[in-house]
Amino acid sequence: MHATVLHGPRDIRLEQVDDATLVEPTDAIVRVVAACVCGSDLWPYRGVKPTPEPTRIGHELVGIVEEVGADVRTVRPGRFVIAPFVFSDGTCVHCAHGIHTSCVAGGVFGTGPSRSTGRPIDGCQAEYVTIPQADGTLVALDEVPDDHLVPGLLTLSDVLATGHHAALAARVTAGATVAVVGDGAVGLSGVIAAKRLGAERIVVFSRHADRQALAREFGATDVVESRGRDGARELKELLDGIGADGVLECVGTEESMAQAIASTRPGGMVGYVGVPHGDGGLSLQRMFGTNVGVAGGVAPARAYIPELLPDVLDGTIDPGRVFDRTFALADVADAYRAMDERTAIKALLRP
Amino acid sequence: MHATVLHGPRDIRLEQVDDATLVEPTDAIVRVVAACVCGSDLWPYRGVKPTPEPTRIGHELVGIVEEVGADVRTVRPGRFVIAPFVFSDGTCVHCAHGIHTSCVAGGVFGTGPSRSTGRPIDGCQAEYVTIPQADGTLVALDEVPDDHLVPGLLTLSDVLATGHHAALAARVTAGATVAVVGDGAVGLSGVIAAKRLGAERIVVFSRHADRQALAREFGATDVVESRGRDGARELKELLDGIGADGVLECVGTEESMAQAIASTRPGGMVGYVGVPHGDGGLSLQRMFGTNVGVAGGVAPARAYIPELLPDVLDGTIDPGRVFDRTFALADVADAYRAMDERTAIKALLRP
Repeated sequence: MHATVLHGPRDIRLEQVDDATLVEPTDAIVRVVAACVCGSDLWPYRGVKPTPEPTRIGHELVGIVEEVGADVRTVRPGRFVIAPFVFSDGTCVHCAHGIHTSCVAGGVFGTGPSRSTGRPIDGCQAEYVTIPQADGTLVALDEVPDDHLVPGLLTLSDVLATGHHAALAARVTAGATVAVVGDGAVGLSGVIAAKRLGAERIVVFSRHADRQALAREFGATDVVESRGRDGARELKELLDGIGADGVLECVGTEESMAQAIASTRPGGMVGYVGVPHGDGGLSLQRMFGTNVGVAGGVAPARAYIPELLPDVLDGTIDPGRVFDRTFALADVADAYRAMDERTAIKALLRP
Repeated sequence: MHATVLHGPRDIRLEQVDDATLVEPTDAIVRVVAACVCGSDLWPYRGVKPTPEPTRIGHELVGIVEEVGADVRTVRPGRFVIAPFVFSDGTCVHCAHGIHTSCVAGGVFGTGPSRSTGRPIDGCQAEYVTIPQADGTLVALDEVPDDHLVPGLLTLSDVLATGHHAALAARVTAGATVAVVGDGAVGLSGVIAAKRLGAERIVVFSRHADRQALAREFGATDVVESRGRDGARELKELLDGIGADGVLECVGTEESMAQAIASTRPGGMVGYVGVPHGDGGLSLQRMFGTNVGVAGGVAPARAYIPELLPDVLDGTIDPGRVFDRTFALADVADAYRAMDERTAIKALLRP
């Protein structure tokens, strides 16, 4: 079988690798129908996060179950499944709290060996992927969906769930005013999530005409092109002079977090999902006086799929539109280049 | 009239000062029935926060309205009132959101001139206090309460409201597991607030037998004497091995915040109300992976008094017990010394 392997900065290849196998009786093997490149994949791709040895990569997939281990009970071969980017057993104390990302038997696809067992974990940019903890991890559809739904279903694996997590962490409720920092696939998914939760005003920070247009189609009511303090000032002018009830931080730099906090009204919340680069630069002194809180983190996508899935299936939301380019898996290097050079918002990969 | 004046480190005096007067038509003059010393008063008292010139101090009071300005509508002379530690107009956009601490016409008693107008603002450790924005600020009782209720009513001015704010920010709900960092009057009030909101387990970090006993009477189910990592480890052993759903941070040091975050289960919240000394030392990198959020800040006591007041009046809660010593206003230096030397949890002052 073929899978994507990252060898070093900007050196990504599709290679012949060992076939996916059932390692534990709780595993399933899934034939990948679609995978994709995540903004967070760009950090090792760019060498910002080192790659000491060739590493399988990718953590989003939808596909068809090919084979299951002896202990797998809830999914059968032939079922169409969504795999969230973190696998989890669905039964531990953290899963019971809906924080599947902290599962005691869990881990992230495409990031090396399992943190609990040390066993190798596949990346999802591949023809086949071994899914640990298949019963807890996979969400199976009742029937194989029409192909046009595949991109939308794939967003449940990460970006839509992550945007939803940001919106929940920012406590977006009906009638809320919302700002979104970041116009990538996660930020755009945050717009969808905020709209879906009933936000009345959704302001997106963006300098790219195509992303602005998509954000508006997803429900953004306003666009601010300025950044930093200027951006926050313009945002406040739009929202009663005080800022947004909730701000979705979907970038992960200290600058973007500072912009998010400056854009939040006193008593409001920042919901952050951008993987932090740097240590955040949070100033409790400043947060204290204005009662601005910060919550979020790595999204427990598995917890949200059951809630979000029906809206994708019936077309209430169309998050698959964040995929503006599709590549054959063999052209994975082009897909990464397009993401790296920002000629794609998000690149879909078809094995 | 007499009022407390801080001259410098550990130099606090009761002095003859100018009589309280109506400066603006929205002011009221209140004769103080009870005031008190706050943990935060100890920072200027100890010289940690400089006192460049003699300054009136104190920000908590209950009393009887003596005189009102021409524009005051809701309180009349003779009414018993509670003044939250921040005055506010009750009508601005922030007050409408329940964040009276950010009121555009607001300010804190006993901290120097008003931030909006520059006019001098009284401290509350005095015989009489001029209350700005009386209609927005003061909560008037229907009748003058029995004297035994005075300490409990005084806690609505700050500590009980602050403990409640911490519990709300930590999202304490029925059945929750809660930890409280800090066994001062605010931490103990946090225990009351968590119990009142239905917490099932309330673990207080404390090394003082008297405070442990009071915490248990207020509803704490467990006590942990260790601090830091050891304390967090012991706490986790008590709570499913994972930590508390919500942690109330009622101290304000970087160490106490680190202990609070380490004591929170993945997906839980830290509600912080300790005035931050240092800049918090928050690590987004660590918070991201575990989805631990941080919210809170300076408590909008005015927003909470209507909800908490009935429970104080009917004896459902007895927060006045945090006052374990009472001093005549003339003995204010003894009151500060008792707080400073930790021979008092909280010192009540009677003019």
